[in-house]
Order: sequence, then structure tokens, then C-alpha cells
Amino acid sequence: MEAFSDGVLAIAITLLVLEIHVPTDQGADLWHALGRQWPSYVGFVVSFVTIGIIWVNHHTLYQELARVDRTVLFLNLFLLMSVAFIPFTTALMADYLNASQGQDVATAVYAGSFLLVAWGFTAVNVYLYTHGDLARTPLNKAERRSRLVRNASGQFGYLAAIGLAFVNAYVSIAVCGLVAAAYIPGRWTWRRAPS
Amino acid sequence: MEAFSDGVLAIAITLLVLEIHVPTDQGADLWHALGRQWPSYVGFVVSFVTIGIIWVNHHTLYQELARVDRTVLFLNLFLLMSVAFIPFTTALMADYLNASQGQDVATAVYAGSFLLVAWGFTAVNVYLYTHGDLARTPLNKAERRSRLVRNASGQFGYLAAIGLAFVNAYVSIAVCGLVAAAYIPGRWTWRRAPS
Amino acid sequence: MEAFSDGVLAIAITLLVLEIHVPTDQGADLWHALGRQWPSYVGFVVSFVTIGIIWVNHHTLYQELARVDRTVLFLNLFLLMSVAFIPFTTALMADYLNASQGQDVATAVYAGSFLLVAWGFTAVNVYLYTHGDLARTPLNKAERRSRLVRNASGQFGYLAAIGLAFVNAYVSIAVCGLVAAAYIPGRWTWRRAPS
Amino acid sequence: MEAFSDGVLAIAITLLVLEIHVPTDQGADLWHALGRQWPSYVGFVVSFVTIGIIWVNHHTLYQELARVDRTVLFLNLFLLMSVAFIPFTTALMADYLNASQGQDVATAVYAGSFLLVAWGFTAVNVYLYTHGDLARTPLNKAERRSRLVRNASGQFGYLAAIGLAFVNAYVSIAVCGLVAAAYIPGRWTWRRAPS
Repeated sequence: MEAFSDGVLAIAITLLVLEIHVPTDQGADLWHALGRQWPSYVGFVVSFVTIGIIWVNHHTLYQELARVDRTVLFLNLFLLMSVAFIPFTTALMADYLNASQGQDVATAVYAGSFLLVAWGFTAVNVYLYTHGDLARTPLNKAERRSRLVRNASGQFGYLAAIGLAFVNAYVSIAVCGLVAAAYIPGRWTWRRAPS
Repeated sequence: MEAFSDGVLAIAITLLVLEIHVPTDQGADLWHALGRQWPSYVGFVVSFVTIGIIWVNHHTLYQELARVDRTVLFLNLFLLMSVAFIPFTTALMADYLNASQGQDVATAVYAGSFLLVAWGFTAVNVYLYTHGDLARTPLNKAERRSRLVRNASGQFGYLAAIGLAFVNAYVSIAVCGLVAAAYIPGRWTWRRAPS
Repeated sequence: MEAFSDGVLAIAITLLVLEIHVPTDQGADLWHALGRQWPSYVGFVVSFVTIGIIWVNHHTLYQELARVDRTVLFLNLFLLMSVAFIPFTTALMADYLNASQGQDVATAVYAGSFLLVAWGFTAVNVYLYTHGDLARTPLNKAERRSRLVRNASGQFGYLAAIGLAFVNAYVSIAVCGLVAAAYIPGRWTWRRAPS
Repeated sequence: MEAFSDGVLAIAITLLVLEIHVPTDQGADLWHALGRQWPSYVGFVVSFVTIGIIWVNHHTLYQELARVDRTVLFLNLFLLMSVAFIPFTTALMADYLNASQGQDVATAVYAGSFLLVAWGFTAVNVYLYTHGDLARTPLNKAERRSRLVRNASGQFGYLAAIGLAFVNAYVSIAVCGLVAAAYIPGRWTWRRAPS
């Protein structure tokens, strides 16, 4: 399951670049043409870092599993589906952020796609906490609570970003970036298996 | 063989997102523009879940193999080819489902591509049952029969979907989704190798 | 090196589908519109099977290696580059095969890209035969000769296809397909490592 | 981490082909039409070889690690992000190299994306040298210096290429190619793990 999940995450993160388009109005000054599509670069960076964090968390989560049952497999498939959708919502946001209309909707959908991923993680987490036999070493109550709080904070951030999209789309994108940045600190020290 | 197959399946499932296009008529209301392309989302979800199930079944099948001969390799290549074709048929269905013409053909081709995959699985299964030396533990007669019945049900469903495409394309898509959903239950408990 | 090579081959083979376009003239009969782009399907199948065979041969070749030096790494990179180029030449052939002009050139380039891959394989093979210390079990003279003859036959076939492209493009494509088919038979029995 | 990194690098290198377009003016002579887009082929080759070298160096670097902490993970993510950006800058350069305007900017951005990757490598290297506990066998001072000199030479080359882009874009591309070529020699002998 990990090889397939790693594959889907690696592909989704790399496909993001296809949504950045080469400016076509060859008459204009290229610096300005490139500058005007800054939402594409911001979208690329925010989505790349977010999927990167998803990958780290995904890896951490599945390293704790001793067994995988079919519910986990399909919750995982839902999680991967929501991640695989991100290149589309990133392109949507990038194309509409500076448009005369639709920047609110596009940004809300963008933040919404991150919320979907956060829900996917919560679903997997909750299932694992209620099925302790799947874990190698069941988490204690304090650890579970700390994870769920972490999850919930992310969801709250993305909900706020969805609401803010209708006030100021730029602030909404900034919140999405901040949520990603907030997930960076953590305890991810992996010891390599001796080879 | 598994790394390559996993790669092809992971790429095919993730490429599905490239077939969802950002609405270009920036004058229109974006909610409506996004809503109008609901066939793209339905196609994304149905194809994603179907390829996800293909991956699970593929994994289960190849875990039972002790050896791989060249016939299996090429039957597998045919199976992967039919899966790699799905992003095209998904895009075709999504583009034509709400068109004034061609929704029957596009939907029939979509269901037909799933039928092709089902045939690929049957071909591999039948070959394995008649070459018991390839399996780790040969399946007994009851297990073989149960698998072939399962396979045949899927094929029957997709055949029905092809026919229904010419009556009502929406019902046809629904049948494709139901066949995928029907494959979800099963006995897929994998124990992780200790690491 | 194998994981990276497997990745490139799996991606190149799956990207082929992106070159098949959904017909856009929604007024026409969709069966006919789909039928008219049969060169895309033929190109997809021929290129898919060819890359599939490349993958099998690549795997066989590198399983025989005990060590990889930097020359092998870069010969391998050249080989992967020629394979990664195939989705472009396939699209070129498919777009021009039924055009009023350019079908000869497009088909010659298509066959030429397969010739490039065959050269890449020959380069790796010749290097390995002259550096026996890289192999696990050096091949004897008869085996080497048989491989080089096999390689040379493929190159002769693709050279013929390039020439035939200027006589009859359809025959040229057929020859490319036949060369691929001729590579299918072989001795590829892999025993799974016990797990 | 290596599976994910390998995946991203393999996908980025293979996506390069999507930036080569099939000529669409079917009236013109196809040889000439194909010839006119030589910047696409040069960009494909230079970027392919550069990403190939990145992969080799990346692999070498991470083989020396005993542990991975979260700073390494995120420096690595930044490195992968800069590599994943290369298909865009390659397409930009290829589209503008022969345009009447913008070839200087496009070429400078192209060389700049390689500089970004070089910075990513330097950041990882410097972090590892100052955190010797992450390495399996810490490098001695002479080795560190030799690596940093190597890194610095590459950065100097790319800086020169950025400057040259505003003098002569073709020379700038040639310098990018030469820097890649200069990285090819090295001591990359990997012994396969016995299997």
C-alpha cells in the first residue's frame, strides 16, 4: 500500500507544474507576463508544501500500522483521491485569483480541497483509534488527543480560509499557506534501517 | 513486476485529474461553470475508485504467485494497457455526457474500457488456474469458481452498462459506479511484514 | 537505479494516453470521429507494447549486474531519455498519419525513435561485454553473440521501417509492430524471491 | 524518503517530453517544422541530463545518511520543489529562444531554475556538515571542502549563464549544458546489494 500511495502523492505533487503555463502573448514584455501569473507560483508552492506535509504525515501514520484491513484501504483511497484532486483546484485558483470575477469561488474551492484532505486524515485517524488491533503500539489517550487537536486545528484553519475567500481571496490563500507552515514543526526523526 | 505495475496504476489514477478542465468563460458565474462540468467529477470519482479496486485486486492476485512466466508478463502488460487507457475514456465520457450528441457512444466506450480491464483480469485468472505451478498455494475448486463468478458478475455489469448507454447514459454511469462499489467488500486483510 | 528506471518507464508508458485526444467537433457522429483517429490507438498500442518489452529487457539486463559504474549509469540515462521521447514521436505519427502531407516524415521519426532505443540497448550491452567484472556471471561467447544478433535484428527492422515510411507509412508502422511482436518470445521466467 | 524523492525526480524528468509540441501547421514541410523547434529538443536533453545528474547526486547524498531529521526532510522538499519546477522553465526557454522578444528573460529564468536546484543541494550539504550525527561516516575536512568547491563551481556556472542570457541566449544554454557535462565525471561506483 505504501508504494502505491507514495506513487500517487509523488505524481500529484509533480503534476502541479503542468498547471503553470508559458505566457503566450509574445509581444508583451516577458518579465511582466511572467510576473502577472504570480498566483500560479504561489499556488505551486502552497500546494507543493501541503502535499509534501501530507506525504510526511501519511508515512508516519502508516509506519505505526501492524495490519491493514479493507476499511483502511478504502479510507486511504479516499484520502489519495482528495490529494489527486489538488492539481485541479490549484489551477482553478491560479487562473481566477486575478480575474475580474470568480476569485472568491475559486479560492474557496482551493481551500475546500485542503479541508477534504484534512477530513480524510481524520477519518483514518478515528478509525485507527477505535481499532487498536491495527496499530503496532496503540497510542495512549494523551497522544490520541494531541493528534486529534492537531487535525482539528488544521480543519479550523481551512474552514476559516473558505470563509475568508469571500472577504479577501489573498488573505484566504495566506491562511492556507500558514496552516501548511504550522504543520511543519513536529517530531519526525526517522532512523534509517541499516542496509 | 509489481513495482512497474504499481507505478502504471498510480500514474493512471493520478492522470485522471488532468482531464478536469478549469472553466474558461471567465464572464460566467463560476459556481455554475463549475457545476456544469459535474460529469468530470463523477468520471474522476468512478474511474478513481475503479482503478483503486483494480490495484487492490492486482496486488492480491500477484501476491499469490510463486513464479512469473512470460505469458503472465504479457497478459499483465495487456491488463495495464487497458487501465492506462481509462483516463482517455473518462475524458471522452465527461466531455460528451451533457453534449447534444454522442453521449450514448461516449458512455458506451467508457463502460467498454472497464469491460476490457475485466477481460484482462479474467485472462490472467484463467491462465493461472490452468498453470497451478505458478501459484504459491493453488486455489481449490470452490475458490476458483467463486473468483470466476465474481469476475463474470463484473463483466455482466459492464455489458449491461454498455447497453444502457444507448437508453440512458446517466443510468449507464450509475451502473459502472455500482459495479465498482460491489467490488469493495472482500477479504483484504494484509499483515505487514515486520520491519 | 532500478527504482528510478522503473519509474521513468512506467511514466513514459502511461503518458502515452495523454496523446489521444477527445474529438472536439461535437456536431459530427462520434463513432466516426473516434474511428478517424485510429492512428492514435495504433500508436498507443505499438508504443505501449514496445516500452513494455523495453522494460522486460531492461529488467533482465540489470538483474545480471553485480556492480554499476558511472558509465553504465550514463548509458542508462541515455537509454531512458530515448524512451521518454517516445510519447512525443507517437503523438507526431498519430497526428500526421492521415494528414495530406508529412506522413512519411512523421512515420520515419516514429520508427527512428525506436531505433534510438535499440542503439541505447546495444551500447549498454557492448559496454557490459567488454567489462565482464560488472556482471554477476559473465555471459559466454555464444550467449553474447545470440544477444547481439537479437539486438541487430531489431535495429535492422527499424531501419527498414524508416525506409518504408517514404514508400508506405502504414507498412512502416506494421513493421514497427512486428519487430515488437518478434521480441515477445524469450526466456523470461522469474522466480519470485520468497517473502 | 528515497522512494518519494525517486518518484518525484522520475516524474519530473519524464514530464519534460510533454513540453515538446507536435507542429500544427500541417501545410508546411514537416522536416522544417520539426527543425524549427530545435530549442525544444535542446531543452529536453539539457534538462533531462541535469535532472539525471541531480538524481545520481541525490542518491549518493542520501546513501550517506544514517538518520533523517525534519530539517533534512524539508530541505529535501525544497530541493524537490525546485526540480519539479524545471519542466516549466524548460518549456518557457524552448518557446521563447527563437522568438523576436523575450529570449533573454526566458533563458535567464531557465538557468536560474538550475541555480535554485544547486542552492538546494548546498543547503542540504551545509546542514549535513554541521550535523555530523546524521551521517553514517562523517566526511573529513578535505572531502567536505572538495564537495563545496564542486557545488560552488556549478553555482558559478549557472550565475554566468544567467548573465550571458542577456548577451547571447544560445551561449547561455551552452553553458548550462557544459555545467551538466562537467558534473558527469565522478566516483559513482555502486555495489549492488547481494539479493
